[in-house]
Amino acid sequence: MLHSGHITRQLQLYLSVFLGLFFYSRNINAGVTSNYVRPQWPSTDMPLDYPAFATPKGYNAPQQYDQKYYYKIGNGSSAREFWFFTPPIIDPDSSYTFGVIGDLGQTFHSLSTFEHYLQSNGQAVLYVGDLSYADDHKFDNGIRWDTWGRFVEPSTAYQPWIWTSGNHEIEFKQNLGETVPFKPFLHRYYVPFKASSSTSPLWYAIKRASAHIIVLSSYSPYAKYTPQWIWLKNELKRIDRKKTPWLLVLMHSPIYNSNTYHYMEGETMRVVFEQWFVKYKVDLVFAGHVHAYERSHRFSNIAYNITNKDCSPIEDMAAPVYITIGDGGNIEGIAGEFTEPQPAYSAFREASYGHAMLEIKNRTHAYYYWNRNQDGTFVAADSVWFYNQYWWNESQIAQTSRIKKDGKRIRPRHQRSPSTQLDIL
Amino acid sequence: MLHSGHITRQLQLYLSVFLGLFFYSRNINAGVTSNYVRPQWPSTDMPLDYPAFATPKGYNAPQQYDQKYYYKIGNGSSAREFWFFTPPIIDPDSSYTFGVIGDLGQTFHSLSTFEHYLQSNGQAVLYVGDLSYADDHKFDNGIRWDTWGRFVEPSTAYQPWIWTSGNHEIEFKQNLGETVPFKPFLHRYYVPFKASSSTSPLWYAIKRASAHIIVLSSYSPYAKYTPQWIWLKNELKRIDRKKTPWLLVLMHSPIYNSNTYHYMEGETMRVVFEQWFVKYKVDLVFAGHVHAYERSHRFSNIAYNITNKDCSPIEDMAAPVYITIGDGGNIEGIAGEFTEPQPAYSAFREASYGHAMLEIKNRTHAYYYWNRNQDGTFVAADSVWFYNQYWWNESQIAQTSRIKKDGKRIRPRHQRSPSTQLDIL
Repeated sequence: MLHSGHITRQLQLYLSVFLGLFFYSRNINAGVTSNYVRPQWPSTDMPLDYPAFATPKGYNAPQQYDQKYYYKIGNGSSAREFWFFTPPIIDPDSSYTFGVIGDLGQTFHSLSTFEHYLQSNGQAVLYVGDLSYADDHKFDNGIRWDTWGRFVEPSTAYQPWIWTSGNHEIEFKQNLGETVPFKPFLHRYYVPFKASSSTSPLWYAIKRASAHIIVLSSYSPYAKYTPQWIWLKNELKRIDRKKTPWLLVLMHSPIYNSNTYHYMEGETMRVVFEQWFVKYKVDLVFAGHVHAYERSHRFSNIAYNITNKDCSPIEDMAAPVYITIGDGGNIEGIAGEFTEPQPAYSAFREASYGHAMLEIKNRTHAYYYWNRNQDGTFVAADSVWFYNQYWWNESQIAQTSRIKKDGKRIRPRHQRSPSTQLDIL
Repeated sequence: MLHSGHITRQLQLYLSVFLGLFFYSRNINAGVTSNYVRPQWPSTDMPLDYPAFATPKGYNAPQQYDQKYYYKIGNGSSAREFWFFTPPIIDPDSSYTFGVIGDLGQTFHSLSTFEHYLQSNGQAVLYVGDLSYADDHKFDNGIRWDTWGRFVEPSTAYQPWIWTSGNHEIEFKQNLGETVPFKPFLHRYYVPFKASSSTSPLWYAIKRASAHIIVLSSYSPYAKYTPQWIWLKNELKRIDRKKTPWLLVLMHSPIYNSNTYHYMEGETMRVVFEQWFVKYKVDLVFAGHVHAYERSHRFSNIAYNITNKDCSPIEDMAAPVYITIGDGGNIEGIAGEFTEPQPAYSAFREASYGHAMLEIKNRTHAYYYWNRNQDGTFVAADSVWFYNQYWWNESQIAQTSRIKKDGKRIRPRHQRSPSTQLDIL
């Protein structure tokens, strides 16, 4: 092959020389040179709505929002049909309802949590890590990953679950020769990380209706200069709160947690990222890991500089509300011991199993509630109306400065006359 | 081949059946059954010093400590000869001298630092990260890795350099399509990480004479449950200070640093590992990253629990001395701005180029000095005699408790009458 290629190149050379001489001699006879000169660059692309680009009729085009698609898996008699909806249009006033679930596992408590969620109006799930707990089983051979996949199929086959990695996804088992972290999780649960310029499925962002959702990895590098740190720094700048007013962050290990279980484990990420959460006015940070439920007030702890002793969490209306929802009901049981007294940043805490719902109404309001399994469906054991941090934050910030000066809290006017009987944060 | 293999297996089958019938028929004639029964398990292995295991004469056996070996690289006229010494015996009273270099790069300042080290009595180098700064060059195409390798060859070909990864080794360059961190570093600089049960060349431990050296990675995961965290937790338990009294830790990003450059970047690792450094009485923690020199007093900051406001570094004789030695002299220049006033934990700081030497004398004493480049060789611009934290620590701890009670420092008796004119820590 190489030899014949060589011959071909030689032939080409002879042919060029021959044709060159031929045309050179022809030019002596003086032919036509057109006066037409084409326009210089740049030319203009046809506009996006030009008829040549028209979307074909039918259900095959991604530009069609909120369309129900049916799909089949399997052949012949084993085929099963499912459906899903294409994503809703990105719009600041889109309403949308998320379920929030963490540390689910596959016990009968898990089943109760999951069945409650199935009866809800949830359109997608914000899942804050620790899926199957397969690694708690002897040999960790994947059977418990298979069963978990079948367990959650009644929801995951029909709507998106936005996956976050937890410590039970690491599955670093040196004694079994498995030293590459996250292997089963990454092979079983794909996420569209490249669309947000991430280089790893462990951290990424997606937009959904009026929400911009950021997923972080508690067990990957997040120090300055690392890929996750660089990505988050850039991603926070890319967010357009005029298009997606609701900024939600998911992670596994909570950075505000007053349970004795996993107490202060989130500090190592808090000291890096908390200042950004406040600066960019994140609305809500959801985490799992602790097998209990907890909701914080808007607090921050970002003034510490080693020598100033300024290391107490303080009320800060620019800060997110932190919600720990690791109470899905897994094999490891409930985290039933809280630190006492309840710290000021902690608004509500309870060691029960359950899940939460976040109902975004428009650019300014969202209703949130936590459902305790033993109450049955739809009962809100803890509930809050959230104002959006971007569209409503200015007056809050002004109030916060007043609080800082005289040292005691003044409830902003909006909070003193809420539009419902519930707390508004 | 498969077919003939199949025939062979068939023949084996026929033969087994035939021989089985043959022996079965023979047994009818009743042969001899010996009365001898071999001893039950377990048997005992021959002892390690048994003659059958004797080391052969010559220079081919790893049991020979401190032996000079010559080796050649290249063929014919391009061959070059080098030499190295096999490791010294592990013994608590072994003396051994380490050079300490960080953030070297390849400027004329780097050359000055390196030439000073070459004239020292150093037997190995503790290198605290940021090697070639190849990533500061356009296209980062490896040329500056090649030149750096040739630059340091006059030492690295003859004695071990104990490598730590720095941020300039990450080389995460998404715009160039390079999204796997640490690739050039890991391909060019091998470390014996498996010998210390590590699963990554970015964190590992080695023993050298009377020192146990732990290398950590500032830009890998270190949160609880991650491989590095698990490894360090186990490694600290494995250390036998009766055999290797000197416990040294290397990392790139310092966890005590009063320079404005990279201020508080080490917090995210400090909140995870500092408590272990104190618990296990680490002697010295060396870091780079900051392009200046700094030495700390023995301080710790591990009492904070979120709600107690107890977040000031306090004098703690069980704590390591932290040394920042990122002043090798690289392309990025010096970090010339310190926080003011100098915090209590900072004993000595200066924004000059240089390197340090750690001369371990025996199980209790080590002499340490920092050499400033412009002073020429062997001049100690900062120097300390260190007592070993394991063999000498008990009386120090007792003194520390007295300090805590009445709130002011009492110099331990050993420090009030030092055996030399230098500070003893």
